[in-house]
Amino acid sequence: MAIKRQVWKEKFGDWYREIIDTAKIIDYRYPIKGCGVWLPYGFKLREHVLSVIRGFLDGAGHNEMLFPTLIPEDLIAKESTHIKSFEEEAYWITHGGKNELSVKLALRPTSETAITPMVKLWVRSHADLPLKIYQIGSIFRYETKATRPLIRVREVTTFKEAHTFHVSHEEARAQVLAANDIYAKIFYELCVPYVVSERPSWDRFAGALSTFAFDTIFPDGRCLQIGTSHDLGQNFSKVFDLTFEDLDGKHDFVWQTSYGISERAIAAVIAIHGDDRGLVIPPKIAPIQVIVVPILYKGFEEQINSECQHVEKTLSQEGVKVEIDDRSKVTPGAKFYEWESKGVPLRIEIGPRDVEQGKITLARRDTGEKIPCKRGSLSLVGKTLTEIEDNLRNRAWKVMENNISTTGDLTEAKRMLNKEGGIVEVPWCGQAACGQQIEGEVDARVLGLPVGVSEAVSGICPCCGKKGDRRIRVARTY
Amino acid sequence: MAIKRQVWKEKFGDWYREIIDTAKIIDYRYPIKGCGVWLPYGFKLREHVLSVIRGFLDGAGHNEMLFPTLIPEDLIAKESTHIKSFEEEAYWITHGGKNELSVKLALRPTSETAITPMVKLWVRSHADLPLKIYQIGSIFRYETKATRPLIRVREVTTFKEAHTFHVSHEEARAQVLAANDIYAKIFYELCVPYVVSERPSWDRFAGALSTFAFDTIFPDGRCLQIGTSHDLGQNFSKVFDLTFEDLDGKHDFVWQTSYGISERAIAAVIAIHGDDRGLVIPPKIAPIQVIVVPILYKGFEEQINSECQHVEKTLSQEGVKVEIDDRSKVTPGAKFYEWESKGVPLRIEIGPRDVEQGKITLARRDTGEKIPCKRGSLSLVGKTLTEIEDNLRNRAWKVMENNISTTGDLTEAKRMLNKEGGIVEVPWCGQAACGQQIEGEVDARVLGLPVGVSEAVSGICPCCGKKGDRRIRVARTY
Repeated sequence: MAIKRQVWKEKFGDWYREIIDTAKIIDYRYPIKGCGVWLPYGFKLREHVLSVIRGFLDGAGHNEMLFPTLIPEDLIAKESTHIKSFEEEAYWITHGGKNELSVKLALRPTSETAITPMVKLWVRSHADLPLKIYQIGSIFRYETKATRPLIRVREVTTFKEAHTFHVSHEEARAQVLAANDIYAKIFYELCVPYVVSERPSWDRFAGALSTFAFDTIFPDGRCLQIGTSHDLGQNFSKVFDLTFEDLDGKHDFVWQTSYGISERAIAAVIAIHGDDRGLVIPPKIAPIQVIVVPILYKGFEEQINSECQHVEKTLSQEGVKVEIDDRSKVTPGAKFYEWESKGVPLRIEIGPRDVEQGKITLARRDTGEKIPCKRGSLSLVGKTLTEIEDNLRNRAWKVMENNISTTGDLTEAKRMLNKEGGIVEVPWCGQAACGQQIEGEVDARVLGLPVGVSEAVSGICPCCGKKGDRRIRVARTY
Repeated sequence: MAIKRQVWKEKFGDWYREIIDTAKIIDYRYPIKGCGVWLPYGFKLREHVLSVIRGFLDGAGHNEMLFPTLIPEDLIAKESTHIKSFEEEAYWITHGGKNELSVKLALRPTSETAITPMVKLWVRSHADLPLKIYQIGSIFRYETKATRPLIRVREVTTFKEAHTFHVSHEEARAQVLAANDIYAKIFYELCVPYVVSERPSWDRFAGALSTFAFDTIFPDGRCLQIGTSHDLGQNFSKVFDLTFEDLDGKHDFVWQTSYGISERAIAAVIAIHGDDRGLVIPPKIAPIQVIVVPILYKGFEEQINSECQHVEKTLSQEGVKVEIDDRSKVTPGAKFYEWESKGVPLRIEIGPRDVEQGKITLARRDTGEKIPCKRGSLSLVGKTLTEIEDNLRNRAWKVMENNISTTGDLTEAKRMLNKEGGIVEVPWCGQAACGQQIEGEVDARVLGLPVGVSEAVSGICPCCGKKGDRRIRVARTY
């Protein structure tokens, strides 16, 4: 890595781009801006992250499906705030071959308007509800701003969107909270810290009654939205006439929710755990958890290789994702450097002295610590992987929590955001006008009201001077 | 199922559409013709088929990647036969939001022109070769003909395309044969019989030197192409200037191949094994391999339910995909009907008599046979699943082989194709003009030269009367 951690604040963007390139995650040199190619190593990381996401959604009774990529303009136009929000951001197909199409087709920017009319075909009565489905696929936005790997792209190749359908608003709202719990579990596994905020009224998803968001803080002090969940009320069911018959034979519109996580979750893993030497991947999602590097010396080759194979076989049988790097033309030093930059959590070195002493040496990626391990005590490997995971999670949470402060002084808030970034919590009266004035004065974005924070809060709204019982989070965002 | 097997020939299309609907595979009532929604059960079937495909490709050293969905027109236009072939079939994006794009973007119809320029960035020398990659994703064709579920659609949501890069033509050709071996293994697992043919010169993939294809025969006598592999020579590497440095320091263009399998593989599974009662899914790819149905009688409920749970637990632990259908408001008969139509290979019935006698009853989906099984002999389940798989494979191969005939008389060939369908092999001199004349006279399509058939063949070409040493396959195709 050419870019060092001590200059992250200023150079974070360069470091981030370099590591995605060096570690062979995605290649963005494709001739369309904001469209990249997932390289084999990055693809495996993506698969492991998706497997975590699928596991929790399946476990909570969601069924995976796959909807078409294309949505006719007239469907999107049915929900008026929806078309306003996406009309100028969508890619539009006007021609099939040389024929002009009678209705333009959008590459889906999100799928509410594709899914709701299909669910109308499947739902008759309360017995068909709740219905909980999700899909994983590409969505598209015609970004005119500068693009940024995995964060602001034109083809988001990895978008998990869940959609649920309910008999009552109460049940739908409970589902949004359940979605937040699922997301908390997912980010726990990814070792990514977060705050949950209820987005302010002027920053909700197009068509939603309320929007919750998970945000994390990047090393440059800016916040990244890494997951959202929406109470859609009956907005979509009304325009698509999606009704159900209740227990009493009466008909009502279905209550809906949707919640999404994109490849930004992977961006967060990369940005938050990485260091001067490159990626640091949490063990549960690492394409390779343990890399075995033989340190060959003349006369010991056979013994060392056979010991490497013994270690590889033993760990494989225990379900550890382990590989031996036995390339003969690459020095051990170059191998260390490469696997460190790719973020493999644990390296095992086996040299002549190790063989003589009947031991191996474990090297932790997160701390650099070297741990001698007896030949027969390979269970230490699993234990160390767990320690690495815990350490990554704990240290990331500490860093984030140290970057959240509170002040009622907007000049001070702006100074803090300029200097340290992070999140500042400001007392607020609850009026949109004051919230937007705060955004303007601190030159940042309102993330919204803290969710899941139990302490009672009161303070004076810095805009209108009224006493308020809440505070809002503000931050510079991606 | 309303449509019966005895009228398949005539009604096969109706039967096929009905079963995809009844078994909840895909819902094609989406408002864009030829675009469907994978339903949860169909999605699981698709995942299992993809898992077979991924297993063999990964095992043979291919790396999975993911390339962008969009390809700029100027890239596609570089290979002249390619643009000719796809220009009128592609969906074209002309606008991002309200801005007209300076270069039109196609929704990929296949990815050679997206992949080759990227590989140029990755390959410097012979040491970087061979390179074997694949991706699984959607491709798009603006079909103007009638669409047909999983067979002729506008969004092919399930297209596996592999691309390989080599130092020599010899190595590339060997890779095409290796691809054919991989495909043979995949179709073995899917229990789908096939013939392999080398497509004639006038029916190759756009840009290929030679094309091999796997075809199977549907119950209506028509052939479906279910996999292809192409020797691309240096056609794409030349137009994209993809070169490598060989051992002697000289530069040459890279030799390429590509090979694809789509959701037609799933269409074949559905069409070939299905019967009057619906789907019959080979055990290895079945979303549910064993369905346990309790036959409840008063006074026996607890015993029967506990026995069902015992069976479910025991089989799960052995890795069998098993579920209990314990819906209280559905009769056992209705459950039998539903799971039969969904093709679950094995049903286990547990009723009061079974509990009394310490046994359970296995019911095979493929033969309808009922097999008593002792409570402690659940290993019979695994054995029976294997027998079902073998039976499905063997009987499908027999049916296909019975539908291949040989004749040098084109009137007779036409009569056979009209009456029975299937494949007819006709002696051929090797000239394209005669081949195309044969197509016209029998009103069918030339599949090509038999591949992997060892017997020597000679005969008189029915068009020019010359003695030939080969024969070509003709068939009515989808």
